[in-house]
Amino acid sequence: MGASRVGFVGLGSMGLGMARNVLGAGLPVRGYDIAAGARNALAEAGGEAVESAAEAATDVDALVLMVVDADQVRDALFGPGGAAAAMRGGATVVLCSTISPKSVAEISSEVDAAGLSLLDAPVSGGKVGADAGTLTVMAAGSEEAFESARPVLEAVSGRIHRVGDEPGLGAAYKVVHQLAAGVHLVAAAELMTLGAKAGCDPKTLFEIVSGSAGSSWMFNDRVPRMLEGDLRPRSMVDIFVKDLGLVLDTGSEVRSPLPLAAAARQMLLAASAMGYGEFDDSAVLKAYEAAAGVGNADSPAPRKPD
Amino acid sequence: MGASRVGFVGLGSMGLGMARNVLGAGLPVRGYDIAAGARNALAEAGGEAVESAAEAATDVDALVLMVVDADQVRDALFGPGGAAAAMRGGATVVLCSTISPKSVAEISSEVDAAGLSLLDAPVSGGKVGADAGTLTVMAAGSEEAFESARPVLEAVSGRIHRVGDEPGLGAAYKVVHQLAAGVHLVAAAELMTLGAKAGCDPKTLFEIVSGSAGSSWMFNDRVPRMLEGDLRPRSMVDIFVKDLGLVLDTGSEVRSPLPLAAAARQMLLAASAMGYGEFDDSAVLKAYEAAAGVGNADSPAPRKPD
Repeated sequence: MGASRVGFVGLGSMGLGMARNVLGAGLPVRGYDIAAGARNALAEAGGEAVESAAEAATDVDALVLMVVDADQVRDALFGPGGAAAAMRGGATVVLCSTISPKSVAEISSEVDAAGLSLLDAPVSGGKVGADAGTLTVMAAGSEEAFESARPVLEAVSGRIHRVGDEPGLGAAYKVVHQLAAGVHLVAAAELMTLGAKAGCDPKTLFEIVSGSAGSSWMFNDRVPRMLEGDLRPRSMVDIFVKDLGLVLDTGSEVRSPLPLAAAARQMLLAASAMGYGEFDDSAVLKAYEAAAGVGNADSPAPRKPD
Repeated sequence: MGASRVGFVGLGSMGLGMARNVLGAGLPVRGYDIAAGARNALAEAGGEAVESAAEAATDVDALVLMVVDADQVRDALFGPGGAAAAMRGGATVVLCSTISPKSVAEISSEVDAAGLSLLDAPVSGGKVGADAGTLTVMAAGSEEAFESARPVLEAVSGRIHRVGDEPGLGAAYKVVHQLAAGVHLVAAAELMTLGAKAGCDPKTLFEIVSGSAGSSWMFNDRVPRMLEGDLRPRSMVDIFVKDLGLVLDTGSEVRSPLPLAAAARQMLLAASAMGYGEFDDSAVLKAYEAAAGVGNADSPAPRKPD
């Protein structure tokens, strides 16, 4: 008997990198994505590309879901051509998408009812971590589900945290984590815009802050993209609009006021409204520049009201 | 002729550590602080403690000012017993306090008029950096002022950035830097409160976030104090109320909207209003806990309105 086959649904900027690392660990991968380009990329990496979630789920011990939101998770599992009906009894759904703790708990009940088990296993580290196999995993679920997923998690992760037994708790950690990532991203844009208007040289300012008490992982990672104006999407503005939405929903649900997360999401919404939703999330800088009148030197000043 | 004598005014949690490192570099120090305890600590460290700013400034090539705000800077230089009249012509005032770029520019003109020169040299790194001699310096001023201050800066700093010739620009970098430090501090408290209410174990949450894309220098430094409830002041809540006030004033002046910095300052103000102004700045957690109803288990729930 060879190594267990692993199924994947969702081969975007995160899922494809993860699938490649699972293949690299010697586990066969059968994967599906709605986009033909993503399926072709899996085949080129040595995986088996199939035409539905059901096919990806057939004959696997663990099925990794790395789609965007809760609707896509439900569709992949229970929609037409969905995975749940095709999986063998007792197999494990490894849910890596960032969705709300409440949605995870609901989906877990439905997965249980279908005779399967769910490991709530969101990840942090972005495309870089997915490509390098150094993601942080926050896993919650039964011992059996965790052990069944372990070979997959070890292939994609540098740090596996088993945070509890109840699916939903992994999502809670991930959503709470996103508060910091999102606020730090937006703070970086707020700082760089203020600095430019206050007469600081942007590159010197980056050098000083990134080596001082003002530094953050997001500042150090995203500001170089802001300085270069490199807006090719690695993580998109609209993904953070969604993630900070989950943060705020969770805050509402557990009654925890979140003034910084709320303000940060408004600036990402502004960037999305300006047309940058599918650009790199460092494009939140554009919303600050617009609000601060940066880059309008060629435009005539508004007329005074009559 | 021995090494140049260095004057200090302000021997608080920052100034004393800096003076010790200047002494450690072999430069004699003559220092003044309004608090007798601080003067005694300087004497114990091998410095000469004196009874006024004027005495500290007598016969020095460089006078370091490490007092709290612009009023204290003016008082130390031009008030009764002030330093400016006692300094020899051409000596350098090394202004390390965090004050506004505008105040620095104004004070610099007054210092010039007194026949002295000013190096605008705010620092980042807190008490830890001051004690270790690893502060980041953001210096602006003439070549002569910079060279005159260099032995002092090298004794206290791991990274000296000369950012320009005009006093005020160093302050601009420092104030802009404080936006990130302040927002990251408050975000850490917002995150930890949300996490506790959402069912996360605080220590596990710290471990995950501090090793992931949500990490920041402030998160990693301050959350351990929050977890231990260690509120002994290293940097105080009221210092960040002041610093984020400078950030917002600068944003108003150069017309750069700062939604995150504005929200962060409100939470620090709340902590100050609750009586934590002179406690460690990690006490901003108390404002979040109050807002989220954490720690009220023993209090009766408020009655419903009639």
